[in-house]
Amino acid sequence: MEVGVLGAGQLGRMLALAGHPLGLRFCFLDPTPNSPASGLGEHVVAPWDDSAALARLARADVVTFEFENVPVDALHWLRDHVRVLPNPRALEVGRDRLQEKTRFRELGIPTADFRAVDDEASLLAAVAELGTPCLLKTRRFGYDGKGQALIREPAEASAAYAALAGQPLILEAFVRFQRELSILCVRGQSGETRFYPLIENQHREGILRLSRAPALQVSPEQRASAERHAERLLADLDYVGVLALELFDVGGTLFANELAPRVHNSGHFSIEGARTSQFENHLRAVCGLPLGDTSLLGPSAMLNLIGHVPPKAPLLEVPDLHLHDYGKAPRAQRKVGHLTLRARDDAELETRLAHVQALLASG
Amino acid sequence: MEVGVLGAGQLGRMLALAGHPLGLRFCFLDPTPNSPASGLGEHVVAPWDDSAALARLARADVVTFEFENVPVDALHWLRDHVRVLPNPRALEVGRDRLQEKTRFRELGIPTADFRAVDDEASLLAAVAELGTPCLLKTRRFGYDGKGQALIREPAEASAAYAALAGQPLILEAFVRFQRELSILCVRGQSGETRFYPLIENQHREGILRLSRAPALQVSPEQRASAERHAERLLADLDYVGVLALELFDVGGTLFANELAPRVHNSGHFSIEGARTSQFENHLRAVCGLPLGDTSLLGPSAMLNLIGHVPPKAPLLEVPDLHLHDYGKAPRAQRKVGHLTLRARDDAELETRLAHVQALLASG
Repeated sequence: MEVGVLGAGQLGRMLALAGHPLGLRFCFLDPTPNSPASGLGEHVVAPWDDSAALARLARADVVTFEFENVPVDALHWLRDHVRVLPNPRALEVGRDRLQEKTRFRELGIPTADFRAVDDEASLLAAVAELGTPCLLKTRRFGYDGKGQALIREPAEASAAYAALAGQPLILEAFVRFQRELSILCVRGQSGETRFYPLIENQHREGILRLSRAPALQVSPEQRASAERHAERLLADLDYVGVLALELFDVGGTLFANELAPRVHNSGHFSIEGARTSQFENHLRAVCGLPLGDTSLLGPSAMLNLIGHVPPKAPLLEVPDLHLHDYGKAPRAQRKVGHLTLRARDDAELETRLAHVQALLASG
Repeated sequence: MEVGVLGAGQLGRMLALAGHPLGLRFCFLDPTPNSPASGLGEHVVAPWDDSAALARLARADVVTFEFENVPVDALHWLRDHVRVLPNPRALEVGRDRLQEKTRFRELGIPTADFRAVDDEASLLAAVAELGTPCLLKTRRFGYDGKGQALIREPAEASAAYAALAGQPLILEAFVRFQRELSILCVRGQSGETRFYPLIENQHREGILRLSRAPALQVSPEQRASAERHAERLLADLDYVGVLALELFDVGGTLFANELAPRVHNSGHFSIEGARTSQFENHLRAVCGLPLGDTSLLGPSAMLNLIGHVPPKAPLLEVPDLHLHDYGKAPRAQRKVGHLTLRARDDAELETRLAHVQALLASG
């Protein structure tokens, strides 16, 4: 069975590493040569909308994606020629903050208040309605903290508008959250759904640095609420595959921040930390195979390697540490790999984490 | 860092799947196109002694092997041009039963009594000395029960000789063992050595079917004895990488049967069953990285898939089962994949194993 993948980045690489043991073959479409997944399947190097490249991808048994900003026409063409999973509508919703937040609201999932911004006048009106501080964001192409401006007081609105104008925008109320969580879930072709435990995420400079699974101090009600929110989205989108829902914990209530219709950085711990990794479960789902057990083998943490991969030997001395080097050239602020740590209990995880963080700080 | 590998079979495939996350690249030399490892690195399709192919391999940072019957001249040429690990001498010893058994004896490692057989007269003399039953074997190219003949009584000697004559032979006393075990170990460039727990192996028609790790009812003395035997071999061969030593349990005493100077089928359970797989540990050793923890995550079993891969869906319903499909065409008696099972305790492992064996019998 061959899986076509839109995108050949590290997510595609890890899909392929999980999929070869299942007997799957891979064909990636990505305009960037020498991408992280290049050596793990056929890599068609072409623009996203290249018709010959899309025709090649359509010869796969199923097509999925690891990159969200594929042109909509290319997706529609593919959908007419091959099974595309998850549903491309999830991608269209997930990559447009206005559609996404509207969907959250329509499904009864708590989210920050928001307004569409079409011009400076509508921004000023929206700032007056939502109050400050608030966040002006591009509706699309925002990731790792890019494409957004904080408006601390109404007088800053015009400057924020000037910085981002020219693209469709959204204004969001500022949510004073205590922590960031995410929930990863997988839905099979029969509608069966499984959830990984809630994950706690720490960002710095807008980039995910550390994820812990399971998140500590999560009440059964919070877990149930996160699963209910995710399940509504999955059903609404007629979803097949892994979906990540990012959440803010606001005094115990979970607010949906954004969804990712794909495997997700905060779920990388699952490669060694869970009984079935998010990558294997995504492939099982899109290939119509039974879903795998999402429970943990032990408390786990994931640390992103940003900019460059530090010296490997000291890291590999740490028990139950697993290195994932994406084979990318070093560049400031770039995710070039990650580490997974697993432990018998929370105390052991804390000790190991402190040790590894010290190694990273010195490397 | 690039690792050159002689052979592109399933062992090479699993080395590559373990090595990509470490940031390693692979170049395989193997005369068979479309081999299991072909899609996971550069595959140079050429005869083993092709000079251009060997020159390509010598551009790697280190060369290792997953196939033992590489011509000796090719190995010697490589050794003069690139670091080859483990020591090619281990390969020369491991692939010749006479050298291998002589080495065991010289190192004080118990092994079946044996005699070199150079012609029919020396066979008849050897049969008289060792008694019957005994086993006539080719010194080289024997695997999965091929290249051997059982001599139940002296009158059968000539027929056995006729079946195998034309190749260098060895006669071995028949060892009435209670069970077959193996020990896998890894030795780093500093000489540091780590051992996986003893494994119990079940063969049928000369092919490994089932391995359990750890082997049950192993006394501390037996474990110490197996480790001592393996350690002597590793030191004697100035070995770097993973080595497997196959053992017979004869009333509690361990007899060495044969060594494999490479990752080994009985160690495949380690991909999900151990904290560091044999494949990762082999690569860590040959690349000069620290060795990983060889302890188990839980009692584990490995079942070979022989001939064809059965329907996947029923297998993937089993919790903690992992499928490894080598991507090979089906063929009678061919190893085309394996399953790993892991459990919390021995009883759970037995239950799951019985269930999976029933599935395999029906599939």
